[in-house]
Amino acid sequence: MAGQVQRQTGVALWRQIADRIRQAISAGAYDETGMVPPEMVLALQFGVNRHTVRSAIAALAQEGIVRAVQGRGTLIERKERLNFPITKRTRFTSGIGEQAREMRGLLLSYSEERADAEVARGLKIRPGEPVIRMETVRKADGRPVSCATAWFPAARFGGMPDVYKRTESITKAFAELGLSDYVRATTEITAVHADEADTAALELAPGAILLITKAVNTDLEGVPVQYAISRFAADRVQFTIEN
Amino acid sequence: MAGQVQRQTGVALWRQIADRIRQAISAGAYDETGMVPPEMVLALQFGVNRHTVRSAIAALAQEGIVRAVQGRGTLIERKERLNFPITKRTRFTSGIGEQAREMRGLLLSYSEERADAEVARGLKIRPGEPVIRMETVRKADGRPVSCATAWFPAARFGGMPDVYKRTESITKAFAELGLSDYVRATTEITAVHADEADTAALELAPGAILLITKAVNTDLEGVPVQYAISRFAADRVQFTIEN
Repeated sequence: MAGQVQRQTGVALWRQIADRIRQAISAGAYDETGMVPPEMVLALQFGVNRHTVRSAIAALAQEGIVRAVQGRGTLIERKERLNFPITKRTRFTSGIGEQAREMRGLLLSYSEERADAEVARGLKIRPGEPVIRMETVRKADGRPVSCATAWFPAARFGGMPDVYKRTESITKAFAELGLSDYVRATTEITAVHADEADTAALELAPGAILLITKAVNTDLEGVPVQYAISRFAADRVQFTIEN
Repeated sequence: MAGQVQRQTGVALWRQIADRIRQAISAGAYDETGMVPPEMVLALQFGVNRHTVRSAIAALAQEGIVRAVQGRGTLIERKERLNFPITKRTRFTSGIGEQAREMRGLLLSYSEERADAEVARGLKIRPGEPVIRMETVRKADGRPVSCATAWFPAARFGGMPDVYKRTESITKAFAELGLSDYVRATTEITAVHADEADTAALELAPGAILLITKAVNTDLEGVPVQYAISRFAADRVQFTIEN
């Protein structure tokens, strides 16, 4: 993270310094103190003057990454990401459960509809077959983590919305509906800018990023039971895959 | 994707329509024609007037998602994402190799340095031990896909930069250096806004999104051989995990 900055790249020097400090923070370089080193130390480290360091720190403060505290210095804002393992046993609640005191899943709306091409592909049914669509938002300790649109074969899981509303858990709802176990078959991950609806539902800042998962869950015979598109606030989660 | 829009949410109607069309495009609803349906059809479908649809389409055009072609209609810009499977056998080149004619890995810079806390944790060595750091950019058919910073234990892979420069492949370089096989142990995935350096290196638009992977590769005995932070242009790749 240290080393001389490049003065000929056409990128303002303070921006380069801000990038370096941001990288150092996310790499955990200042984890012991929880603070950015003093301006003078950073100025020496990067070979720039204090004014440049000050501009860089000001930019990071505006991004909400650090916060100047009178008489103490520049604190790194703890924005801990919930870790969400993606495995055969992926479940939202137990997956990040230990990292939060309270997990809630709120049903925003639901409907019965006919499967479009994408949903039919996910659930391995014919386009036009009836499915239950649920729109949910999931919160960890009151902080919105993700919005999800989930589809279930209507013939098998018509009762899903009612049971989910009460249990706030897909796993518990499946169990009540006779499916005691299920597995994650496939997960696709992309990232996009949040649209207006998700920005509001997840209480995001304008321009915020969503990590999108498109996931298929199946029963133990490999029959799809759920297709879901989940939109996670990218600054609140990370995914981990262990091979 | 169809259905009435909500008129009381405080979100401009044309924005809601733009969001709906964007979702329909990414769900593949118009894949057969490769075109957005005519304004009049969309107006009927969403229950709004043609002017609102036109504003929505104009917004999507500005985002580069669609393009109006005189006398033909509104074409969907093909921005196919390279699919990058994350498995025990994850390799950059063979992973997306069939989806591109030419894969290149270019060495931007390298150095020998001392492992910081993060790199030491990834490589399971002591902080301060010597490592080789390589900065690379990887291109598929000339289009930049990702930038990566990779670290290797210097004692074992001191020759990595020279061999990589020639072979443009980590897998081939490992093989030449005596490591005929290796596996992906762990992958962490997050998403952030691109900084100035990556925006330039990946030829991105301002405000573009990066998918970040932090990955550990080990030899077949489980000894880490590489720790890498890769920054992928989010609009050019997706990751898939099969369980």
